[in-house]
Amino acid sequence: MLKKVIPYAHELLRETIQPGEVAVDATCGNGHDTTVLSKLVGDDGIVYAFDIQQQAIDRTMLLLEEQGIDNVHLLLADHQYAQAYIPKADHGRIGGAIFNLGYLPGSDKQTITTPESTVEAIRAISAILKPGGLIVIVVYHGHHGGEQEKQELLDYLTSLDQKEFSVLQYAFINQQNNPPFLLALQKSV
Amino acid sequence: MLKKVIPYAHELLRETIQPGEVAVDATCGNGHDTTVLSKLVGDDGIVYAFDIQQQAIDRTMLLLEEQGIDNVHLLLADHQYAQAYIPKADHGRIGGAIFNLGYLPGSDKQTITTPESTVEAIRAISAILKPGGLIVIVVYHGHHGGEQEKQELLDYLTSLDQKEFSVLQYAFINQQNNPPFLLALQKSV
Repeated sequence: MLKKVIPYAHELLRETIQPGEVAVDATCGNGHDTTVLSKLVGDDGIVYAFDIQQQAIDRTMLLLEEQGIDNVHLLLADHQYAQAYIPKADHGRIGGAIFNLGYLPGSDKQTITTPESTVEAIRAISAILKPGGLIVIVVYHGHHGGEQEKQELLDYLTSLDQKEFSVLQYAFINQQNNPPFLLALQKSV
Repeated sequence: MLKKVIPYAHELLRETIQPGEVAVDATCGNGHDTTVLSKLVGDDGIVYAFDIQQQAIDRTMLLLEEQGIDNVHLLLADHQYAQAYIPKADHGRIGGAIFNLGYLPGSDKQTITTPESTVEAIRAISAILKPGGLIVIVVYHGHHGGEQEKQELLDYLTSLDQKEFSVLQYAFINQQNNPPFLLALQKSV
């Protein structure tokens, strides 16, 4: 069967991230993707997991403890400053990163990702990917502000030089209620 | 690496078509996809390969002979009449089908697929897919008439009931010169 958006995002990351590498969860949320990345990089790797909401950091920390995971750095910070938070030694060693746009599931939906911060974070993280490294972006856009973020993101990504990056859109186009779709940005080798 | 459009189309067909099933090459062209489908259905399966150009049928027949393939029915016919050309006993047994829109590579480009025939052919073939069966469509749209065909096709596919079909768009969105993209239509189980 055609893979749904989130399993396909994880498959792309699995095909790209190698044990011992660095990975980034740009929006750790409830922590699920953080645990996926943790397993991909393994004991010799490291995951930097960002969120601007304490509630998300707390949930993720709880999940990591439950699963006995200790290769994750949790950062209560805006992902647009990823280059400052990720040590210089790890720049150029990032195998993969994931963004889930929109709001924290189960929250009051008052805090959402914004176009400026999202585009700036993608620009910052893509600059420190390894050659062949991948950023996957799960675009939720049904909420207030989501459509504008989607448009600004597409404008930015379609403008990227095809010699430096490939940008894939993976979307189910006959579904009701604005289902999320996937964007994947791969740095050329 | 992110898979290019044609390898990804073939991967989807490989995941879906089982040995002994029926497959359809709706636009056999130079015959390459016909040989791919032939291998997927195997000795107990059958491929119906359509083209409206004698030149395409001739090229495909030559390729099939070269490769010793004998499980293909070549049909010099418009794919919109697929239901009439495919025996009733094979209706509902089609595991997968492929369309390559546009013109025959290496031809004078005077003969192109048209929106009416393409949409009607997709409607006809999708009605006789097995449950879970898949149609992949490689959309070339840089030629004269290509943009209109693309639009009419997208209008049709986005209107399909999500309970009956899933429609995936797989497209690289930062490339110059109107590269082809993929549409995949899967019948619900």
